[in-house]
Amino acid sequence: MTSERLARVALNKLVEPGDPRLLRMVADRGAEAVLEALRHEAMRHSSSGLAARLRTVHPERDLEDAGGRGLRFVIPGDPEWPEQLADLSTAGTLTERGGTPLGLWVRGRGDLGSLVRQAVAIVGSRSSTEAGTWAAADIAHQLSMAGWTVVSGAAFGIDQAAHRGALTAHRPTVGVLACGADRAYPTAHREMLEVIARDGVVVSEAPPGADVTKIRFLARNRLIAALATGTLVVEAALRSGALNTASWTTMLNRVLMGVPGPISSAPSEGVHQMIRNRGAVVVTRAAEVLEAVSPMGEHVLTERREPPRPHDALTVAEQQVLDAVPVVRAAGATSLARTSGLSAQQVSSALERLLSLRLVIREGEGYRLPPHIA
Amino acid sequence: MTSERLARVALNKLVEPGDPRLLRMVADRGAEAVLEALRHEAMRHSSSGLAARLRTVHPERDLEDAGGRGLRFVIPGDPEWPEQLADLSTAGTLTERGGTPLGLWVRGRGDLGSLVRQAVAIVGSRSSTEAGTWAAADIAHQLSMAGWTVVSGAAFGIDQAAHRGALTAHRPTVGVLACGADRAYPTAHREMLEVIARDGVVVSEAPPGADVTKIRFLARNRLIAALATGTLVVEAALRSGALNTASWTTMLNRVLMGVPGPISSAPSEGVHQMIRNRGAVVVTRAAEVLEAVSPMGEHVLTERREPPRPHDALTVAEQQVLDAVPVVRAAGATSLARTSGLSAQQVSSALERLLSLRLVIREGEGYRLPPHIA
Repeated sequence: MTSERLARVALNKLVEPGDPRLLRMVADRGAEAVLEALRHEAMRHSSSGLAARLRTVHPERDLEDAGGRGLRFVIPGDPEWPEQLADLSTAGTLTERGGTPLGLWVRGRGDLGSLVRQAVAIVGSRSSTEAGTWAAADIAHQLSMAGWTVVSGAAFGIDQAAHRGALTAHRPTVGVLACGADRAYPTAHREMLEVIARDGVVVSEAPPGADVTKIRFLARNRLIAALATGTLVVEAALRSGALNTASWTTMLNRVLMGVPGPISSAPSEGVHQMIRNRGAVVVTRAAEVLEAVSPMGEHVLTERREPPRPHDALTVAEQQVLDAVPVVRAAGATSLARTSGLSAQQVSSALERLLSLRLVIREGEGYRLPPHIA
Repeated sequence: MTSERLARVALNKLVEPGDPRLLRMVADRGAEAVLEALRHEAMRHSSSGLAARLRTVHPERDLEDAGGRGLRFVIPGDPEWPEQLADLSTAGTLTERGGTPLGLWVRGRGDLGSLVRQAVAIVGSRSSTEAGTWAAADIAHQLSMAGWTVVSGAAFGIDQAAHRGALTAHRPTVGVLACGADRAYPTAHREMLEVIARDGVVVSEAPPGADVTKIRFLARNRLIAALATGTLVVEAALRSGALNTASWTTMLNRVLMGVPGPISSAPSEGVHQMIRNRGAVVVTRAAEVLEAVSPMGEHVLTERREPPRPHDALTVAEQQVLDAVPVVRAAGATSLARTSGLSAQQVSSALERLLSLRLVIREGEGYRLPPHIA
C-alpha cells in the first residue's frame, strides 16, 4: 500500500467529489503533500472542523472496510484507471465542479479501464416516455452487441433503460453513482445494480456510504461524460440533469448526440434545444451512434432508403418517358416523344416496358400514370 | 406588348418548364433570338415535330385567352417579378431541371413580387401525420401573423396545412403548381386554390391548361425553393418530393429547416436524414424559423425555459447549502457547513429560508430533501 494511495483515500473522505481547487492542488503537488498541509493547518487550529474531521480519517481501515463490502479504490496509474479522465484536469469548471478525481470506488467483476476503452454514455430524463425508453434500450442493446460499453447513471427512466438494453445483450455496462458505490440510489434499483456489478462495474467518486446530494450529482455527471467517447441524450426536459452531462460532453470535446422526438413532447424539448444550440448530432438508431463515435471512416453509414421499387430498374430513356407521362389526361406517344426529347422508336419500346411494370396505364390512344403516383 | 414578352410566351408553350439548355440560351441571347433560331430550323425541316408545334403557337392569342381565365404572364423586368429567381440561372441543374423561368403564369389579386419579399416555403409529405399537419398549420399561421408569406405547393398533407395556416391568419399565401395555374391539382383543392387567389397568388411555370408530370413537379420544386428565403420541411419520407425541394434550397444557398419527429415515424425519416446530412436547422416553432431566416440579430431568440421555480430566487449561499443537503439520510447543520464550506451562521439562516420554501425538510436533528427532488 503506497502512501500516495492512502493519502488519496483520506482526502476523498475529507472533501466533496469534484472539488476543483483541491483536485488542482493534488495534481500540482501530489496527494501526500496536500494531506500533510491540511494536517499542519489542523494542528494550528485544533478546535476547527477540519481537525475534527481529520481525526475520523483512517485510510487503511477505510480501505479494508470498503474491501469487505466489495469495493476497491482505483487511482491514476492503476492498470484499471481510465486514462481519458485526465481530460478533466484541463476542462473548465462547470457549476463549480471539475478536476480529475482522486480515485474511483469501484464494485463489480468488470475491469473499468477495459470496459470504457470503447464506451458510449446514454442518459436522459427520469420521467421518460415509452418511446424514449424504447429508443434508449434498443440503441443500448445494439451498441452493446457491437462491442461498445454503455455508461449511464442508473437513475429511473432513460438511464435504467440504457443499462437494461446492455444487460439484455448479455454485455457488461457501467453504472456511475452519485452516492457511495456500496449503496443504491434510487433504492428501487438495488437489484439492477447487483446485476450490473456481476460482469460490469458500479462506480462512484463519493466515499462508501455517502448519500446523494446535488453536488454529488453534478460531480457524477462530469464523470459519465468523461468516461465515454460520446454522450447520447435520449430525452431531456429543459431542466434535466442530462443537459448538465451534455455540457460536460461538449466541454470535454466528446461527441454529443441527441435522439429527436415529437415537438409536442416536453421530454424532447431539451434535446431539440441541444441539437439547435450545441450542435448535437441527430441520431435515430445505433448505426448512426457508431458512425459518430468511431474513428473517421470506420463506420460509414449506408443511408437508409426505401425498399427498391420497379422505377429503380428503369433505363435512362424509360425514366425520361415516365417523367413525361401526365397524371390526369392521357398523352399520345408523339406528345411523349416531344416532351421527353426521344425518338418515336425509343418512346414506343419504353412505353412497352412501363406498361408491363404497371408504371403507366393506357387510356384510349394515350398513356397516363396510375392514380396517386406523382 | 413587347416582342420579348411574346417570344417568351411562345417558348413557354414549346418547351418543358425548367429546361436548363433552353433557359441558358435565352439568358445568353434573349428569347426573340432563340425563337427566331427555332423558326429557322423548322423551315429547313418543315415536316418535323418542331415545325408542327410552332404552327400551334400564337402568343398574342394565348395571352388573351389566359387573361380571360384570370392569368397574367409575369416576366423578368416586370414590377411583379421576384428578383430572387435570378439565383436559378447559376445554380446547378438537379435532376436535369434548372434555369431562371421564361416567365410565370400568375393568378390572383396578390402582387407576387411583394408577397415573396419575405417568404418561407413550408413543404412536406402528402401522407402526413396529425402531428405534422398541426405543426405545419401552426407554424404557417404564426409566420403569417409575423408578416412573412407562406409559399407551398398546394398538395395534400403538409402543403395544404401550410396554406390553411396562412389563410386562417387572414394573410395571403403563394401556391406554386406543377400544372397550369388555371387548373387544380389535386382537383380536391380547387376551392382552396380559389381562396388562395383571392388575396394571394397561384403561380405556375407550365402553360395554361398543362397537366402535371414528374418533370413539371421537379421544375416546380426549384421555384418553391427559389422564391423563399428558407424552406421548412415538416415531414418527409425517404422518397418524398419535399427532399427534392430541400436539395434545391441548399443548392440555392437558402436556409434549410426541418421539424423533428418521433424516430418511429416514417414521415420524419427524411427530415432526420436532412438534419444529419445536409445541416438543416432544427426548428420546433415559428420563432425558431424567424430566427433562422431573418437577418443576423433581428430575431434573437429568448430560449424557452421552464417556469421559474423557488430555487431561482435563492442566494448563492442558500443554493450552496441546498446542494449539500442529502436526499435520503438527513444531515445535521454542522455536516452541511462542512460540505458547503460555509459558516454555521450562514448555514442556519439558509436552512431557515429553505425550510420555509419547502425545499428542505426536517428529520430529527437533521435536514434532507423532500422525496424526488434530486
